[in-house]
Amino acid sequence: MTVTAFSPLFYAESSHNSDLRYFGRILVGDPFIAFAAGKKKIGVFSSLEIDRAKKESTFTDVLSHNDWLAKAKATFPKRKVGPAEVIALLGKHYGIKRFSVADDFPTGLFLQLNELGVKIEVVNGMIFPEREIKTPKEAAAIREGNKCSALGIAAGERALRQSKIKAGKLYYRGEILTSERLKVIIETACLEAGATSIDTIAAGGDQACDPHCRGTGPLRANELIILDVFPRVVSHGYFGDMTRTFLKGTASDAQRNLVAAVRAAQLVALSHIRAGVAGSAVHVEVVSSLKKDGFETTQTKKGWRGFFHGTGHGVGLAIHEAPRLSPTSDAVLKKGTVVTVEPGLYYSGLGGCRIEDVVQVTAAKPRLLSSYHYNWEIR
Amino acid sequence: MTVTAFSPLFYAESSHNSDLRYFGRILVGDPFIAFAAGKKKIGVFSSLEIDRAKKESTFTDVLSHNDWLAKAKATFPKRKVGPAEVIALLGKHYGIKRFSVADDFPTGLFLQLNELGVKIEVVNGMIFPEREIKTPKEAAAIREGNKCSALGIAAGERALRQSKIKAGKLYYRGEILTSERLKVIIETACLEAGATSIDTIAAGGDQACDPHCRGTGPLRANELIILDVFPRVVSHGYFGDMTRTFLKGTASDAQRNLVAAVRAAQLVALSHIRAGVAGSAVHVEVVSSLKKDGFETTQTKKGWRGFFHGTGHGVGLAIHEAPRLSPTSDAVLKKGTVVTVEPGLYYSGLGGCRIEDVVQVTAAKPRLLSSYHYNWEIR
Repeated sequence: MTVTAFSPLFYAESSHNSDLRYFGRILVGDPFIAFAAGKKKIGVFSSLEIDRAKKESTFTDVLSHNDWLAKAKATFPKRKVGPAEVIALLGKHYGIKRFSVADDFPTGLFLQLNELGVKIEVVNGMIFPEREIKTPKEAAAIREGNKCSALGIAAGERALRQSKIKAGKLYYRGEILTSERLKVIIETACLEAGATSIDTIAAGGDQACDPHCRGTGPLRANELIILDVFPRVVSHGYFGDMTRTFLKGTASDAQRNLVAAVRAAQLVALSHIRAGVAGSAVHVEVVSSLKKDGFETTQTKKGWRGFFHGTGHGVGLAIHEAPRLSPTSDAVLKKGTVVTVEPGLYYSGLGGCRIEDVVQVTAAKPRLLSSYHYNWEIR
Repeated sequence: MTVTAFSPLFYAESSHNSDLRYFGRILVGDPFIAFAAGKKKIGVFSSLEIDRAKKESTFTDVLSHNDWLAKAKATFPKRKVGPAEVIALLGKHYGIKRFSVADDFPTGLFLQLNELGVKIEVVNGMIFPEREIKTPKEAAAIREGNKCSALGIAAGERALRQSKIKAGKLYYRGEILTSERLKVIIETACLEAGATSIDTIAAGGDQACDPHCRGTGPLRANELIILDVFPRVVSHGYFGDMTRTFLKGTASDAQRNLVAAVRAAQLVALSHIRAGVAGSAVHVEVVSSLKKDGFETTQTKKGWRGFFHGTGHGVGLAIHEAPRLSPTSDAVLKKGTVVTVEPGLYYSGLGGCRIEDVVQVTAAKPRLLSSYHYNWEIR
């Protein structure tokens, strides 16, 4: 039996592929080849990226794609050469017996490599399972992401606070405050803090009952407004992910009960999160807490009502990563894992509320990596 | 022989996969199943996205992933069901003989579908070649993207103009003007205009000689500063992509010659771009124009000097798409195609300059889809 070292292989943009960003610690917007050979980490870069890769990345061998393409042309004179031929050649050069790829490896390239006789194993699950466990440095990076989230939420709250109510609508600096305007205010604050926040949610009223609706048009007084802010820190690529729900004007008792139930459910989740607990078990506790407070989940002709998303998800170099805290999750929480805790309730007519923080799992009480107050009624 | 209709299949995030965004016209950050069956467009959404998909997307059939997962469980009681089983079931339901996928389709899913006996063809090249030809509506969307770019560049130029020079450094509103600060100013202007701009380049001096370096630290007087701004319009997802090079202070004759050569090369490219011309031919003309003006390209031990990237690339729902205007491009320009035109010159010690606009190919002179002045010396 030949002992084969694990040789993960990538052909992807590290701006999108967080395993690759983790592997090489460099942000590249176009796909490039990268792999491990024993203790070596090899990255193959275009002339546009190679100098930066030498300076910024953690690759031990930074190679020129052009040079290796030329070698591939010489080796495969009858083929139209591309990444597959370069990988085949490099595999031989570094003595790789078999490459390992994640399940999102591109099929076209996989088939070409098969054709060239390059051995590839598709890994079942995560290619770097250790990515789930965050080092203190990574936890600090996520905390920094959440600091950016908090600054975004603070800017949003400030705008709501400074807004005036006229005929049920909100006016900020003399103009109608729309979801779009509020998003710009939040995202600008994130930018100023060193993070890019896209797809920010600033949705009020019934719009907020659709948990992924970003929000459009004028925001209204006396309606619950969800601000969900998940910026990515430019310098290292780790995300923050926080949500707060506000209301400008006067809340009804029903709205107060709703918000109180969501916050209570979040505290229940936090009290159950620790190493060794199943992700699904945390979710079950949240559902049960919401139910105890009188909030049932039902599917109607018009869509879902109640709590119909997972309680949380891992966060790091990807905004959504393992593990999940959801009914179908088979994850068991490990020490060092970082997850969001974000119960919500959504009832058209009454409104939506979600409260989200980020914690790191320990053997005991989880460590909070996000921080912002929970006062939500703004007069 | 059975006539099989073309049934493209996706399992991807439309935030990343621009073919899928083109197909369904909805922004979703998590992977979902989508395919065509004759004239029907089917999208399969989580409970989180389904209501929004019904409202916003162009899918004729918006299905619930949960419902179909339950059906898959009943059909495949012995398998751990996921997207593969749902696709197998839906393929049968819609009478699909064979799915077609792009070469970036995930390998793991491809292999599972093979195992389930689902026929899949991997398309060689673009899955929607018609995406290359932009409709008037799409051209207008790209023009809007470039309007956001121009507003970003204008904000950057304004900050340079308002800066004071002290001991060779730039001071904006009393503080040292860094690349990071200038990027925030530019990206905020893009946000205000309705577009998200990430990875903006605001690099000066030798940093700008590395064309993908974003720029860090203080900007200096009398140095060329490249601003490359490629925002994505939030509402429809089309990109703008423009670059201007500025200098605050006094330019040297060498810097003036450099900038003049780049602009001259851009005009040469524009004069050659029309339907029927090879992408590589346009690039050759640019290289020859730069050479004529005395600017050679060489590879040194410290990296490349001169002009070492392509002249341009297609732009649309992706920031980089077909066709390319580069030495290795085999594209022939088609009427309606939209491309960037962005020659550059980079010499450590002297500085870097790139000027980039976006045009739509016609049978005659290309139509400019970007607009910003070319004055670059700021006193």
